[in-house]
Amino acid sequence: MQKMTVFQRFSRSFRENPSLAKILIVFTVSGGGLVAFSEANSDSRINIVNQTEADAKKKRVVVLGTGWAGTSFLKNLKNPSYDVQVISPRNFFAFTPLLPSVTCGTVEPRSIVEPIRNIVRKKNVGIHYWEAECFRIDPENKKVYCRSNLSGDANENEEIVVDYDYLVVSIGARSNTFNIPGVAENCHFLKEIEDAQRIRRTIVDCFERASLPNLSDEERKKILHFVVVGGGPTGVEFAAELHDYVNEDLVKLYPKAKEAVKITLLEATDHILNIDLLNYGFMQVLGFRFDKRITAFAEDKFKRDGIDVKTGAMVVKVSDKEISTKELKNGGAISSMPYGMVVWSTGIGTRPVIMDFMKQIGQGNRRVLATDEWMRVEGNESIYALGDCATINQRKVMEDVWAIFGKADKDNSGSLTVKEFQEVLNDICERYPQVGLYLKNRQMKGLVDLLKDSKGDVVKESVEVSLEEFKSALSQVDSQMKNLPATAQVAAQQGSYLADCFNRMEECEKNPEGPLRFRGEGRHRFHPFSGTSILDNLLHWEESKQLPSSPEIGFRLDTAVSGFGILYMPASKLAHKGIGDIRLGETFHLRKGLEWHLRRQNFEPSYIFFPVF
Amino acid sequence: MQKMTVFQRFSRSFRENPSLAKILIVFTVSGGGLVAFSEANSDSRINIVNQTEADAKKKRVVVLGTGWAGTSFLKNLKNPSYDVQVISPRNFFAFTPLLPSVTCGTVEPRSIVEPIRNIVRKKNVGIHYWEAECFRIDPENKKVYCRSNLSGDANENEEIVVDYDYLVVSIGARSNTFNIPGVAENCHFLKEIEDAQRIRRTIVDCFERASLPNLSDEERKKILHFVVVGGGPTGVEFAAELHDYVNEDLVKLYPKAKEAVKITLLEATDHILNIDLLNYGFMQVLGFRFDKRITAFAEDKFKRDGIDVKTGAMVVKVSDKEISTKELKNGGAISSMPYGMVVWSTGIGTRPVIMDFMKQIGQGNRRVLATDEWMRVEGNESIYALGDCATINQRKVMEDVWAIFGKADKDNSGSLTVKEFQEVLNDICERYPQVGLYLKNRQMKGLVDLLKDSKGDVVKESVEVSLEEFKSALSQVDSQMKNLPATAQVAAQQGSYLADCFNRMEECEKNPEGPLRFRGEGRHRFHPFSGTSILDNLLHWEESKQLPSSPEIGFRLDTAVSGFGILYMPASKLAHKGIGDIRLGETFHLRKGLEWHLRRQNFEPSYIFFPVF
Repeated sequence: MQKMTVFQRFSRSFRENPSLAKILIVFTVSGGGLVAFSEANSDSRINIVNQTEADAKKKRVVVLGTGWAGTSFLKNLKNPSYDVQVISPRNFFAFTPLLPSVTCGTVEPRSIVEPIRNIVRKKNVGIHYWEAECFRIDPENKKVYCRSNLSGDANENEEIVVDYDYLVVSIGARSNTFNIPGVAENCHFLKEIEDAQRIRRTIVDCFERASLPNLSDEERKKILHFVVVGGGPTGVEFAAELHDYVNEDLVKLYPKAKEAVKITLLEATDHILNIDLLNYGFMQVLGFRFDKRITAFAEDKFKRDGIDVKTGAMVVKVSDKEISTKELKNGGAISSMPYGMVVWSTGIGTRPVIMDFMKQIGQGNRRVLATDEWMRVEGNESIYALGDCATINQRKVMEDVWAIFGKADKDNSGSLTVKEFQEVLNDICERYPQVGLYLKNRQMKGLVDLLKDSKGDVVKESVEVSLEEFKSALSQVDSQMKNLPATAQVAAQQGSYLADCFNRMEECEKNPEGPLRFRGEGRHRFHPFSGTSILDNLLHWEESKQLPSSPEIGFRLDTAVSGFGILYMPASKLAHKGIGDIRLGETFHLRKGLEWHLRRQNFEPSYIFFPVF
Repeated sequence: MQKMTVFQRFSRSFRENPSLAKILIVFTVSGGGLVAFSEANSDSRINIVNQTEADAKKKRVVVLGTGWAGTSFLKNLKNPSYDVQVISPRNFFAFTPLLPSVTCGTVEPRSIVEPIRNIVRKKNVGIHYWEAECFRIDPENKKVYCRSNLSGDANENEEIVVDYDYLVVSIGARSNTFNIPGVAENCHFLKEIEDAQRIRRTIVDCFERASLPNLSDEERKKILHFVVVGGGPTGVEFAAELHDYVNEDLVKLYPKAKEAVKITLLEATDHILNIDLLNYGFMQVLGFRFDKRITAFAEDKFKRDGIDVKTGAMVVKVSDKEISTKELKNGGAISSMPYGMVVWSTGIGTRPVIMDFMKQIGQGNRRVLATDEWMRVEGNESIYALGDCATINQRKVMEDVWAIFGKADKDNSGSLTVKEFQEVLNDICERYPQVGLYLKNRQMKGLVDLLKDSKGDVVKESVEVSLEEFKSALSQVDSQMKNLPATAQVAAQQGSYLADCFNRMEECEKNPEGPLRFRGEGRHRFHPFSGTSILDNLLHWEESKQLPSSPEIGFRLDTAVSGFGILYMPASKLAHKGIGDIRLGETFHLRKGLEWHLRRQNFEPSYIFFPVF
């Protein structure tokens, strides 16, 4: 039930690498949390928002993280009856799907970030932000322990303890090295703005190094060998961006380098973009089968472009000079190649603070923090986790089959009529979406088909089924369970969903709108999270199809964060730019097909469309 | 005869701080320089431009540095009979007058840089660039020793030895700490792009730190105390930018911070902008007396803005928490104040590699490398130095008075007729521009007035003067000597001047166009450098008054570098921008007066005009 990327799935046996944990030095521990803070500062001339008595009655919501999930939650939270504290080491939201473009200067970092204070200050909800990093969650006492990593006076209070009534954990994930030796030391990651900036500097440094005199051909080729590890969307996009950057811009500045440059893409599975994209509903509605056609398109394009795609090659070691891979097919031969730069983009791992939290709450044997379908951490009513730091542990039908049967069998006859079953079918399909998915995938229309399937063709609507027959009919259903991919879109949708729950918390306590509680009494307060529908995506996009206000880059972050699935960019803004520009219809290989598709549908041709992964 | 800023002039007694020298590790020394390199790579498929026999005959020009002087030289070099090697640790040219704007996000770093390879690749002259830093000049063997500071394999050749026929030294200066304790460790400088980016991050960090809970009012005020040291154009402009940034942007994001922020400007002399701007011809032609009115305007404006200008305050120590100043007037009392960030902008000092070079050539007792009026390093015919790393050592008339007299006294009569004197007057005024300046400042029309002045009113045109009388007439002239300020404009003009000399070297060897050699025979090859005239500045500006092609920021670097004295910016480009924008007629306090002035003269009002300091 874990959320995993291609590489993670493949490399399950590698253990987590805890060495990435940031080491911070703390001198003073402040007690009492925020209430104490507010009191201590009551003589301050600076206005502290949560000092009034009215505020003291408000529920304290603490949000950890300012990525897609956290920011989406904050943007969509409208109910002013909360006192919200946002804590994150990053005081901005970053539009991460454009990170590969930052590596090559196609997009400036400034164009894809938005100060979190700018996002929250326009709200009618009282929201405070602190630039600090949570290093411990204490669910028992409902406190989080945070440290400021701002350079400053070491003798000052650097530790912040914050009390919460509700905790929203949306701190994302870390790059996963799978403990492969040398990866952390010698590879670049592509997760944060700073990573992208470092990669950009390193690319140019490689070209400058290769231009120095006194180098042999071999040395020059080694320096200009760029290796990308991981054939997922990020790795593929970075390789494509780098290729264009080299061939359209850098060769003009470094004409001698052209013949020495090489880009290699390493992927452990058989294909690049070998990722289950069933959840990318947006692709489906456009009739674009991303998974197969794009893989073939990208592999073929890369071949023509001279990008060396090595599939079935698992990295086993990275030294400061060479990267070693194991051939997974032919007897596992290990080979090494020298490189100038390696970008590591093989998927995500759990952050240490989450691992620690998982141990505290009995999830120590899991790899990813699990929540229920309402994004509550299992067994912790007041803690929610969403985005890349958690995964929804969809409850299996078979675990509850007895309870479902009992609930449906209103007359306690020990057998279920089709009518009885049909009365709870909607609730079942909502509580266990795998049922609906199963019916849809097998092209069944409803219950009768399901029972027919299990009992043969003899079932009629009046027939009753026993518990055993009911079990048998549902036995295959759980195989349809899908994890949501660790994408920006999913995280943003989760944030928006959770904010909506918070907005209507009181209302839904009184009038629950969710499905029947099969194991308990009454109904669930909310509908469970199910991801935004395809139609919603398109509608969102249509709404936001307007000229952006920023003269630098053509998208509006305030709409982009809502998870609409497409970014657009006016070509007119890009035509003038010099080195490192976006080239309309060129840069984003993967997306070219999509853009053409949209053009044929008479969308404005002067826009570039980006599907948001 | 040294080129000094306000603070330097004041703080002459402080010794240089050599601790800023970059420490680089070198493993292998390659011998033979570039010729050997070319041979060693003759089997390379990579085309090396200077391999042909024709190239071998070319004079090898090595240019150190890619700042205003070096870049201007490269841009203006047109004669293809040179083989040019450019060596600089910075592979881009930076439009440094806009650095203060980068600190507050008004301008993006990308907008004010241009890859040096982009600048040189369009030339018909063979120019090669290497990203390396010169650490030793060997004038005896005509070699420069350089190191690449690119991260790479330590076992590779990191040292480059380059032979030259002509060396153009334009490596600029370093920030001068005057060896004041704690400055290097605790202050920010504002010299490089990276400095400006660091300052920008630190400003925001201070605001984030000040927003953390558990802080007392006092602590908050301390963190939000920004100290600027040095009341020259850079310091004043940074203080003004910071003030606007805080009051127009940051207080929106950090509303609680408003009352705690304080900006202090420390200046050792009696006034800010207390700088001799006689050389800023541009100001003069507009009838704008920069030196006095702008000082008063800036001091008054700063007062109204709440910027605390402390003049007569010399910094004596900077700890990690406090900055200590000495009151220069009232008995030298020393006081300390806590700070959040200090920006140090007090002038420039000589780089270690230049100090070392000066020792080799017998200038070890000087503070700044001296050149003659043709920018040749004294005693080194093949080495030129220009921009901030050198100063022109204008020859004194009194040193040559005997030679001048002898040359003028064609009939060797031992006395000079007015006619004889007038025949050489133009040459004297060109060779010793202080003569012309003296005449102009005393409102004299020529020789007769000068002689009248020294001998009283009794001189007639027919009268002859003796050597003693001649000496007496010229005795005050040298007091008019002015050093050129260490500005981008002067550096750019010098680069352009020197390129022009190189372009016409052969031609001027045959037909010297310079003034009479008083101490030698014949004429000088070239006119000495005298700075571009006021009119030239305006003409340049008129030529370049066109809409810039970059959508980000409205100026064209290719014209900006030519030293025209004005930057312009279309307001329409700026109107849309969000946080950290340039506000037309607002941001640049100092320049507002100038802009108004230009508007009254019916210049296009949608432009912002920047005088280039």
